[in-house]
Amino acid sequence: VGVTDRDRFGVPGPDADAPAPGPAVFDQATAARRIEPGVYEVHPDGRFAMAAAESGSQATINGGVLVATMLRAVLDDSPHPHPVSTSVHFLRVPRLAPARVRVDWLKRGKTAAVARAALTQGDELLVDATVAAGTLAGPDGALAWTGEPPALPPAADCIPLRANQGFAGQVDLRLDPATAGWLDGRPAGVPEMRGYFQLRTPRDPDAYLLALAVDALPPVVFGLGALGWAPTVELTWQMRAVPAPGLLRVAARCRHVSAGWFDEEAEVWDSAGQLVAQSRQLARVGRPRRP
Amino acid sequence: VGVTDRDRFGVPGPDADAPAPGPAVFDQATAARRIEPGVYEVHPDGRFAMAAAESGSQATINGGVLVATMLRAVLDDSPHPHPVSTSVHFLRVPRLAPARVRVDWLKRGKTAAVARAALTQGDELLVDATVAAGTLAGPDGALAWTGEPPALPPAADCIPLRANQGFAGQVDLRLDPATAGWLDGRPAGVPEMRGYFQLRTPRDPDAYLLALAVDALPPVVFGLGALGWAPTVELTWQMRAVPAPGLLRVAARCRHVSAGWFDEEAEVWDSAGQLVAQSRQLARVGRPRRP
Repeated sequence: VGVTDRDRFGVPGPDADAPAPGPAVFDQATAARRIEPGVYEVHPDGRFAMAAAESGSQATINGGVLVATMLRAVLDDSPHPHPVSTSVHFLRVPRLAPARVRVDWLKRGKTAAVARAALTQGDELLVDATVAAGTLAGPDGALAWTGEPPALPPAADCIPLRANQGFAGQVDLRLDPATAGWLDGRPAGVPEMRGYFQLRTPRDPDAYLLALAVDALPPVVFGLGALGWAPTVELTWQMRAVPAPGLLRVAARCRHVSAGWFDEEAEVWDSAGQLVAQSRQLARVGRPRRP
Repeated sequence: VGVTDRDRFGVPGPDADAPAPGPAVFDQATAARRIEPGVYEVHPDGRFAMAAAESGSQATINGGVLVATMLRAVLDDSPHPHPVSTSVHFLRVPRLAPARVRVDWLKRGKTAAVARAALTQGDELLVDATVAAGTLAGPDGALAWTGEPPALPPAADCIPLRANQGFAGQVDLRLDPATAGWLDGRPAGVPEMRGYFQLRTPRDPDAYLLALAVDALPPVVFGLGALGWAPTVELTWQMRAVPAPGLLRVAARCRHVSAGWFDEEAEVWDSAGQLVAQSRQLARVGRPRRP
């Protein structure tokens, strides 16, 4: 879960509050440079940091940014272009310092190629991912079916979240007012979150931006009043279609909260009305910060 | 996706058609014997085989049975009892011959312990799993919330699937008639599947049986008339509560089918009305068998 509490989102405000991110900040922050076959140098980037307040002195990087970074390393040498299924276990919090991604191919098949990617700093394994890459194109006449899209009000009627430092300063999120009551201390009572998503400096969506989008909304449990840092233990997402340019719609729901665990299922729809990504994550319910 | 076409399920029939499985067949078929630290001997068991017809001469084992087997190896030395999240990539089809599961712990934390498990035969990696183990008990007063359960008719009004050899001979599946039209050549036109699940020789549900339950229904795309072998590429499931004894209710839906790929999301509810497991898998649409 990408973001943590109302203080970092703050109250709605004009976009003029936003710092001016460079056009390529996301691509810089997720860059993976090959230093030898299967080994990539990456750098968790403070411009996508969040939650420094809750986690003490250590800033944490948005999980979706880390996943996008690991996908760049995997897709660099993939026989298929699309990460059709990516399973990620978040083990330890990376420092804002150089890191490595090691990619091992487990299978390079005609329909799917599967790689394991490990993000490390020194000897420590921080994030472990398994990626199935495939090709999202089929023969004409292949079976096609899609469920109902989520209902969102027009973007102009949604609540833009105020820019702030780090992650919130990079993304342009506009929340469906029906899921934004927690901003004013009146949570809706249901664990749902919906909104429009793009980077503040717009960039056409692709697999990397989808990896960010599936984990970009405030945690669904904010809708139950459970604010606070909500660390993701595991997140799996599927890329289902190549997205069209434009705003993305993201709708997230939860099915069960107990014993400190909750699930969050997100769908991402593009401007052409395609379901382009699905995700589910298992995370820990956040504890409110001490006053 | 566990089962493949109407021939193996056949038409509804009395349970008297069933072979009489021993009381411990499932536990035998999923046994993992430790032969050295972190290495387990297992044996893909023909009693849970399926799809021999489609895959040529080679019988394939139900994916959920393989996952249950790998979980036995992981949980043998886990600091936490429950597989709260299990991500599995199916790479190659195991033979009905001895195999090994190697378990490597990536993290042994207070809240979650994460292991990677690899099922191999000889030098070949067949199934790759990453398992987060946790403890499904929380402090009194912890936040609790659950969504609406699926609507199923009473079990007595559902359609028992005729026993047959292999997998279908071991499980007692009773389908909601609303999702069973494909049995008579009249698919409902929506990719949904719902039913009651238990072993034919009933056994209290636990984490291992849940691993089977999430992949036990006929593929959701049968509801669109796409019968045929539907191989799973990736499946991730979450255990959300310790199940009560009795019949399990399983409800599966799909959100998107295109380019030969489909998703299947299942929920498992226990006899006490708890949501006990969730899953999503990405699979390939089956091709009908040649006449």
